[in-house]
Amino acid sequence: MDRLVIGVDLGGTILRAGAFDAQGTMVVVCETPIEAARGPESGLQKMQGLIKQVWAESGAKTLAGIGIGSTGPVDPLHGIINNPFTLPTWENVRVVEWMEKAFSVPVTLENDADVAALGEYWQGAGQTIQRLYAVTVGTGVGTALILDGEIYRGVDGSHPEGGHMVLDPGGPLCYCKMRGCWESLCAGPSIERQAREADLTGSHLLEMAAGERDNIEARMVFEAARMGDKPALAIVEDFTRYFIQGILNVCILFVPEVIVLSGGVMRSTDLFLPRLEDALQAYTEMVPAHRVHILPAKLGYYAGLYGAAYTIWSKVL
Amino acid sequence: MDRLVIGVDLGGTILRAGAFDAQGTMVVVCETPIEAARGPESGLQKMQGLIKQVWAESGAKTLAGIGIGSTGPVDPLHGIINNPFTLPTWENVRVVEWMEKAFSVPVTLENDADVAALGEYWQGAGQTIQRLYAVTVGTGVGTALILDGEIYRGVDGSHPEGGHMVLDPGGPLCYCKMRGCWESLCAGPSIERQAREADLTGSHLLEMAAGERDNIEARMVFEAARMGDKPALAIVEDFTRYFIQGILNVCILFVPEVIVLSGGVMRSTDLFLPRLEDALQAYTEMVPAHRVHILPAKLGYYAGLYGAAYTIWSKVL
Repeated sequence: MDRLVIGVDLGGTILRAGAFDAQGTMVVVCETPIEAARGPESGLQKMQGLIKQVWAESGAKTLAGIGIGSTGPVDPLHGIINNPFTLPTWENVRVVEWMEKAFSVPVTLENDADVAALGEYWQGAGQTIQRLYAVTVGTGVGTALILDGEIYRGVDGSHPEGGHMVLDPGGPLCYCKMRGCWESLCAGPSIERQAREADLTGSHLLEMAAGERDNIEARMVFEAARMGDKPALAIVEDFTRYFIQGILNVCILFVPEVIVLSGGVMRSTDLFLPRLEDALQAYTEMVPAHRVHILPAKLGYYAGLYGAAYTIWSKVL
Repeated sequence: MDRLVIGVDLGGTILRAGAFDAQGTMVVVCETPIEAARGPESGLQKMQGLIKQVWAESGAKTLAGIGIGSTGPVDPLHGIINNPFTLPTWENVRVVEWMEKAFSVPVTLENDADVAALGEYWQGAGQTIQRLYAVTVGTGVGTALILDGEIYRGVDGSHPEGGHMVLDPGGPLCYCKMRGCWESLCAGPSIERQAREADLTGSHLLEMAAGERDNIEARMVFEAARMGDKPALAIVEDFTRYFIQGILNVCILFVPEVIVLSGGVMRSTDLFLPRLEDALQAYTEMVPAHRVHILPAKLGYYAGLYGAAYTIWSKVL
C-alpha cells in the first residue's frame, strides 16, 4: 500500500485508530485506554503515538491525512474539542492544529455520531444512500444526518441532537433540562432506572442482578422480557412505544431513504423491530414512511473509524 | 421588461399568478377563485387563462418559465397534483405536462409550503440564509426546509410534514391518525375546538361569537386572552407551551439559522413570542438554540408566488 488515511475514534474510555486504503479497507486497527483525566496534553501524545504505531504496522509509505471522530461537543469548523463531560479536563483542546503540526498532513475533527453515520454511508449499511439518518441507542440516544455523503451541520457547524427532541412533556427530567426527551425515555439508563424502581414481585430481574436492584442492566430487562417476565415486559412495552414515536417523528421530519440503527439496545431488536416496521408500513398518509428502510448498522465499533477516514478520502479522491 | 417568469399559487379556494423579473420584483399579480370541484380540466384552463392575463398585463416579450406551487400532496419530480382532499376530484393531474404544452416553456411544480419558504429565502425574511426552516400555523401546521437555497426533499421527492411530529402522545387524535401531533395541538381548529368545549363561565368568548359556541374562532380566543379572559388565557397557555416545544424540537433536530413564522395564528405573536425567545435563549446545553433567529415572514400571501417564480429563475440565471 502506497497511501493511507488514518481514522481516529476518541471515546470517553477507549482511543482507537485504524489505517484505511482508498477503497475503504481497514488494513490495521489498534486501541488503547485514553485516560482522559490525565489531561489533554497526555491524551494528545497518546493519540500521536497510536497514529504512528498504526502507520508503521500498515507498511504504507505516505500518510494522506488524519480524520478524528470525538465524543462531543466538538467544534468541527475550528478543530476544537470542548468536552469536559466525558473527557474530564478537555476544554478548548486544539486537536487539529496539534496533529497537523505533528504529522504535516490535513487533519479533520468531527462529532463521533457524525463519523459513525458517515462510515455506514461509505462502507456500511447506507452505501450510496442520498439521505441517511442514523440513530444510536446506548448510554444516550445519538443521531446524525448524512445528505449526499456529507454531514448535515447546524448553525456554527453545530451537531443536531435528535436524541433530545421532546416526545412526551410528562416524561422524566433529562440532564438536557427538558422532560420526556427521546433519550430520557429510551436510552439504557432510562430502562435501568425504570427496572430499579419497579415493583419486582414475581420478576426474575432481581435474581439476574444477584439480588441488587442497582445491578440491574438494560440488557437484563430485555432478556427477562424475552422469558415473559411481566415487569420487564411492561418496561419494554413503554420503550417500544416511545422508540417507535421517535423513529416516526424522524420519518415525518426528514423522510430519509434509510434509518441506520446502532448501539447496545439494538442487540434486542427482536423485541421491537417487527412493531416498528408495522408502524412505518401503516403510516402512509402524511409522508411515505412505508418507503423508509430501517437497517441495522454493519460496522459496529469501527463505524467511527471508517467515517473519520472518509472525511479525508472524500476530499483527496 | 424583456423576460419574466410567472409564479402560480394554487390553493384550495384561490388561484393566484404573479409576473416576476429576474431581480425578484413582482410586476403584476392577479387572482381568481379556482372552483376546484368543477374538475381539473376546467381548473387547468383557468390557470392557463390567468397566466396569459398576467403575461399580457406585464408587457413582457418573453416568458422564461412557469413555477407552480400547489396545495399538496403533489409529486414535484413528475409534475403531478394528487390532492382530492383540498382540490376535490384532482387526482393524478399532470399539470406540468399540460402547461408545458400550452406555453412551450419550462414548468415546475412544488408543494405550497416549500415555495412559500423559498419565496422568503429569495426576497423575504430569510435572504442568503444557509439553513432556513419555515413554520406556518393556520388551518394546519405546515413546515419546509430550505438548504442553500434548495428545497429539502424526502424519499421520492416527498415533502416532510413537520407539523405532524408527535409532541404529546396523550394529545387529541389528528386526521394523520396520531395523537398529539403539533397540528392537533396548535393549529387554529385545535384552538377553536378547545374554546368551544371549555367552561365559558365568566368569559367574553360567547359574546364575541354572538352567543354561539360554534362561531368561536381562534382569533377571538387570542383577543379575549389579551383582555385577561381566564378560559382564553388557559387555552393560549397550552398553545404556547406546545408551540415552544415544537419550535425547540426543530432547533434540536435542525439547528437552522432562521425559523420563519407565518400563518393566521402569527397575528397574535405578542402573546407568545417573548416566551419562545426566552426558551431559546435558555436552551444552550445540547444545541445552540440561542443562535437560532425567529423571524416573521415578510411576503404574506404572496410568498408562494415569489418562491414558485424562483424555482425557474434560480435555474435560468
